[in-house]
Amino acid sequence: MKCIVKTAPGPGNLELQEKEIPVPGEGELLIKVKYAAICGTDIHIKQWAPFAEARIKPPVTIGHEFVGTVVDVGDKVDESWKGRRVSADSHVPCGKCPMCRDNKQNLCLITNGIGITFDGCFAEYLTIPEAVAYPVDDAIPDKAAAIMEPLGTAVYAATLVNVAGKSVVIQGAGPIGLMAVAVFKKAGASKVVSVEINEGRAKAAENVGADRVINPIEVDIVREIKNEFEGLGPDIVIECSGNPGAIRNATEYVRPGGDIIPIALPSKDVTFNFTETFYKGVNMHGISGRQIFHTWKVMNGLLKSGMDVSGCISHVYKLDDFEEAFEMMESGKSLKVLFEP
Amino acid sequence: MKCIVKTAPGPGNLELQEKEIPVPGEGELLIKVKYAAICGTDIHIKQWAPFAEARIKPPVTIGHEFVGTVVDVGDKVDESWKGRRVSADSHVPCGKCPMCRDNKQNLCLITNGIGITFDGCFAEYLTIPEAVAYPVDDAIPDKAAAIMEPLGTAVYAATLVNVAGKSVVIQGAGPIGLMAVAVFKKAGASKVVSVEINEGRAKAAENVGADRVINPIEVDIVREIKNEFEGLGPDIVIECSGNPGAIRNATEYVRPGGDIIPIALPSKDVTFNFTETFYKGVNMHGISGRQIFHTWKVMNGLLKSGMDVSGCISHVYKLDDFEEAFEMMESGKSLKVLFEP
Amino acid sequence: MKCIVKTAPGPGNLELQEKEIPVPGEGELLIKVKYAAICGTDIHIKQWAPFAEARIKPPVTIGHEFVGTVVDVGDKVDESWKGRRVSADSHVPCGKCPMCRDNKQNLCLITNGIGITFDGCFAEYLTIPEAVAYPVDDAIPDKAAAIMEPLGTAVYAATLVNVAGKSVVIQGAGPIGLMAVAVFKKAGASKVVSVEINEGRAKAAENVGADRVINPIEVDIVREIKNEFEGLGPDIVIECSGNPGAIRNATEYVRPGGDIIPIALPSKDVTFNFTETFYKGVNMHGISGRQIFHTWKVMNGLLKSGMDVSGCISHVYKLDDFEEAFEMMESGKSLKVLFEP
Amino acid sequence: MKCIVKTAPGPGNLELQEKEIPVPGEGELLIKVKYAAICGTDIHIKQWAPFAEARIKPPVTIGHEFVGTVVDVGDKVDESWKGRRVSADSHVPCGKCPMCRDNKQNLCLITNGIGITFDGCFAEYLTIPEAVAYPVDDAIPDKAAAIMEPLGTAVYAATLVNVAGKSVVIQGAGPIGLMAVAVFKKAGASKVVSVEINEGRAKAAENVGADRVINPIEVDIVREIKNEFEGLGPDIVIECSGNPGAIRNATEYVRPGGDIIPIALPSKDVTFNFTETFYKGVNMHGISGRQIFHTWKVMNGLLKSGMDVSGCISHVYKLDDFEEAFEMMESGKSLKVLFEP
Repeated sequence: MKCIVKTAPGPGNLELQEKEIPVPGEGELLIKVKYAAICGTDIHIKQWAPFAEARIKPPVTIGHEFVGTVVDVGDKVDESWKGRRVSADSHVPCGKCPMCRDNKQNLCLITNGIGITFDGCFAEYLTIPEAVAYPVDDAIPDKAAAIMEPLGTAVYAATLVNVAGKSVVIQGAGPIGLMAVAVFKKAGASKVVSVEINEGRAKAAENVGADRVINPIEVDIVREIKNEFEGLGPDIVIECSGNPGAIRNATEYVRPGGDIIPIALPSKDVTFNFTETFYKGVNMHGISGRQIFHTWKVMNGLLKSGMDVSGCISHVYKLDDFEEAFEMMESGKSLKVLFEP
Repeated sequence: MKCIVKTAPGPGNLELQEKEIPVPGEGELLIKVKYAAICGTDIHIKQWAPFAEARIKPPVTIGHEFVGTVVDVGDKVDESWKGRRVSADSHVPCGKCPMCRDNKQNLCLITNGIGITFDGCFAEYLTIPEAVAYPVDDAIPDKAAAIMEPLGTAVYAATLVNVAGKSVVIQGAGPIGLMAVAVFKKAGASKVVSVEINEGRAKAAENVGADRVINPIEVDIVREIKNEFEGLGPDIVIECSGNPGAIRNATEYVRPGGDIIPIALPSKDVTFNFTETFYKGVNMHGISGRQIFHTWKVMNGLLKSGMDVSGCISHVYKLDDFEEAFEMMESGKSLKVLFEP
Repeated sequence: MKCIVKTAPGPGNLELQEKEIPVPGEGELLIKVKYAAICGTDIHIKQWAPFAEARIKPPVTIGHEFVGTVVDVGDKVDESWKGRRVSADSHVPCGKCPMCRDNKQNLCLITNGIGITFDGCFAEYLTIPEAVAYPVDDAIPDKAAAIMEPLGTAVYAATLVNVAGKSVVIQGAGPIGLMAVAVFKKAGASKVVSVEINEGRAKAAENVGADRVINPIEVDIVREIKNEFEGLGPDIVIECSGNPGAIRNATEYVRPGGDIIPIALPSKDVTFNFTETFYKGVNMHGISGRQIFHTWKVMNGLLKSGMDVSGCISHVYKLDDFEEAFEMMESGKSLKVLFEP
Repeated sequence: MKCIVKTAPGPGNLELQEKEIPVPGEGELLIKVKYAAICGTDIHIKQWAPFAEARIKPPVTIGHEFVGTVVDVGDKVDESWKGRRVSADSHVPCGKCPMCRDNKQNLCLITNGIGITFDGCFAEYLTIPEAVAYPVDDAIPDKAAAIMEPLGTAVYAATLVNVAGKSVVIQGAGPIGLMAVAVFKKAGASKVVSVEINEGRAKAAENVGADRVINPIEVDIVREIKNEFEGLGPDIVIECSGNPGAIRNATEYVRPGGDIIPIALPSKDVTFNFTETFYKGVNMHGISGRQIFHTWKVMNGLLKSGMDVSGCISHVYKLDDFEEAFEMMESGKSLKVLFEP
């Protein structure tokens, strides 16, 4: 089968290879991949960012967002999995560390990762532990199912606050920001304003349902956002830009007593007015991964009842064209980029 | 001005009278009523149910659900209220009792009530304390604004659980049940099933957005509901039927770990299998009124972003035809019934 | 080794037998039992109550509350367990059912049970899955560690409400009620009142820290409790009596907006005034088992910082004297009864 | 009567003056002060920090923490207040702004303040609105009652997280830090570690119940704290030092999924590793004032059941010696400093 392999440490070193179809071990499923999606993490692995250097031991087939069909199962796995369409959480919690034992599996101290610590989904087939496989409802389109893993992070954010009737700003309209727009609109937000510089992404934000998109360069963004929400700012800010300046803005314009949820995370330290932020009763909620599978159950419910995330996807490539796919993703001109192996 | 007055204790004793337009006192607003709505409580007052006997001292102008325009203000009230379109919470908390001082104003021990302890809104004008007046967003239609008070109870229920992506059963499709359907769909429920015997109300439930309506008489309702939700039942049950048998059913078919929120309340004691209900981790959340005004802020957000409750209203009458209006409401053939004074 | 075996269906049929020390299988620990405790469930098994008939397939060694030392481990278990002092959650969640996958393992639909579906701890040794073993802090006395499983239910209740500074009534001063007194006092309750008829248990409630014990037969209990708490009743009621009349009382005297947590569960249906209870904003929270292991982490913290539960234990027997131990437990004259094998 | 007046803008300008005893207006209580306490804010007013310049219009009698006896009442106030011992929340919410109307009175946009916008409690008598007066339980000592206002901030923090059985670090052992130690111990924390440089304050932290006090200069504080809590850090960090470096430390050593609650707030911006902090699922909860009066009800419950805060107070002065009292407070050698007028 074809697969995309990080062959060695260092920038680049991605290669299309032929391998044997893997055999599912005890507790594992063999999956034929329908669609896989490129994550920012995959770009970090290609570019060999510090994160990649710390966690990846090449050679490894990369990729961890996908949908596919179970074609075989290993020992101790129920046969009923065969033929089911599944996506998966990419984090495989150990189940034994203090965080797993404190019912916080998404904060597992020694998580394994699909396409990180074992072979991933940029391939025609992959094997995964049954424990992270999630059967997708029939009503959900394949391409939506392929991006459930990253979408789940936005859904997790929505489960931390009671969204219905609340006002929301979503900073950044990259793939995660766009997904957040779709999720918060579906969850009954009274108004969702997207903040984005890039014109193409701004248009995409409108397509997925943003009530307004503001270019932060063209206006005094703090004043503009406050004014958009009765002079007081929004109840909730979802941070998907990873920009330290944008984070600082959020602390200034969020409503007193409001919530800031950082999803995209900056590569540098962040400086802000701690006193003004917290003295007005603001809460910041850290997020890591998704609750396995409470978040997925909620997401499944949102998608099967009509949440449309097709507007978050811009390109589909064959594995053979992986170089072009990665370049498109790196160009910032795309939204979510998929592979159809 | 015209108004409908409960003239004396006992059944009936409702009369259309002419009175002087009231003068707003200190802290009060004078409102010209656009629409008012008949509540089940008004029927109890007409029929002189025990509740009415305990709380009402005739003569009093009844009615407590309305929208109108502020035409004058009393001392110590800002002039900017004039000309604003407002609805109001009918509960006027005392601000001094132990519940008010425990930040639970909706559980005030000595609440005053519009149309209960002072003259209400089945009239061309009424005065209310500024403290319970709520300015309605321009985007909200008049008729929707007229029913915000009862709608708020359904919204309050939705703020007690995180609805997005959850499965919901709403028992009863009378006015409150219909409003609950609209609220839970707007808040992102994955599926809302209405349970209702009356055919006209069943159709209304579909109109306001129920994914399915089940007639509990035609099926084994406990089994049918469980099957509708993966054999496990819904995450949330909103009880708007007031029927002890329906409540018992809810305790049987709600999903383990699920939530039951009673809104309509039965006139008799309820008997159920306490052990099976609570041993499966079910929670029951009591509701009284609305949080003033957190619930209204959320509701305002839901309505201005498109929640449509027009399908909950079936008739509009003139005050002159109040007898017909009450009879229609009592017949069970109507949904919400309004007055346009 | 010695063990107490339910040899056949039907009342009685408990026998002291000699068996081989079991060998730990894959993922299992072999534990030498220091102390084990008799649970109400063990009495049900002896008496062959409907619950027992439905779940137990004799012959099986019974008992599921204990502390002991790990003396051997099976395949795929870390050697570091050897020598550790452990207690265990008696519920072994499957990890695969919809409740387990919704992060509600304590509501697992097909839980295995120590001493229920496999051999338990009324024995010199037992094997358990590593997944339910909990290492006990050195500062915790053996006898306290032996009752952590039932104590955990009271701790779970305390994690559902924010106890600090709140007023509490605990109905029933049997073993679970006594543990609840200790937990809620330690968690900073402002006042804990125990309600108990039995004089010996009433004294025990005082010993473990109750601020007052009321005999419900000697007074108008609803009025008495309300008066004890500013005429409004307590913030929280923990129901450990399993008596339908006591539950009804709780719904009457709990404070508006308060919380009722049923722990002991009655064998009959319960009838109460649903309307008065829920219209005053009361919440009822169902509990099942413990969160594995969030509840245990909290409990470990409470015990190691000085929570004293020795007053909940009245007798220690040898396994040879099991008949006397069970009779003592059944007599209602004891508190918690332990075995020291 | 004697009172301490900020006579004019600028540093200093505090003067002991003789004034008439005030007459309570409509809705007001006249209180004879028993004890008043100096707050950090009073020091800012003396030194004329930016905060003071923005909010204070001299001349005004300062001071806002006190206990006293109601000796007279104004119009529309119940006579039953006379003779009651009361403390008060210093924040007088307007009741009309969007935050007050969102049930967040402690975030009122136009709060009045005792001793800030009207005459305060460094006097023999003061008048306050009934709406902020809190009757103190008889079991609470006068000096404890005098510091309920600042103590309430620590109590508010404790109501935001479920403290029982959790591990806690409290940064800083100034007056607020010491109060936090007392509150979190009483609320059932498993271990409370205080971090403090000053030797006298370190000793005071032990006196009020800290399980350990660490001098952050003598050790690698991040490593030391992590090691103190199983290598993972504490569940909760309460920040009472106002030191940007300490805040940065907290983000490093708090346990994954843990909570940081900033109480003391720094005068400068804070810089920290946003990504590491929030990717490990940490939450930061802003606090402002106290919930009026839910927090006071909880605090009353904690104090009347034995929480001892006497160890947070070091000096008592007469109003005549106010200069010495302020200098003692400014020296950093004192804990809480009281006036007995």
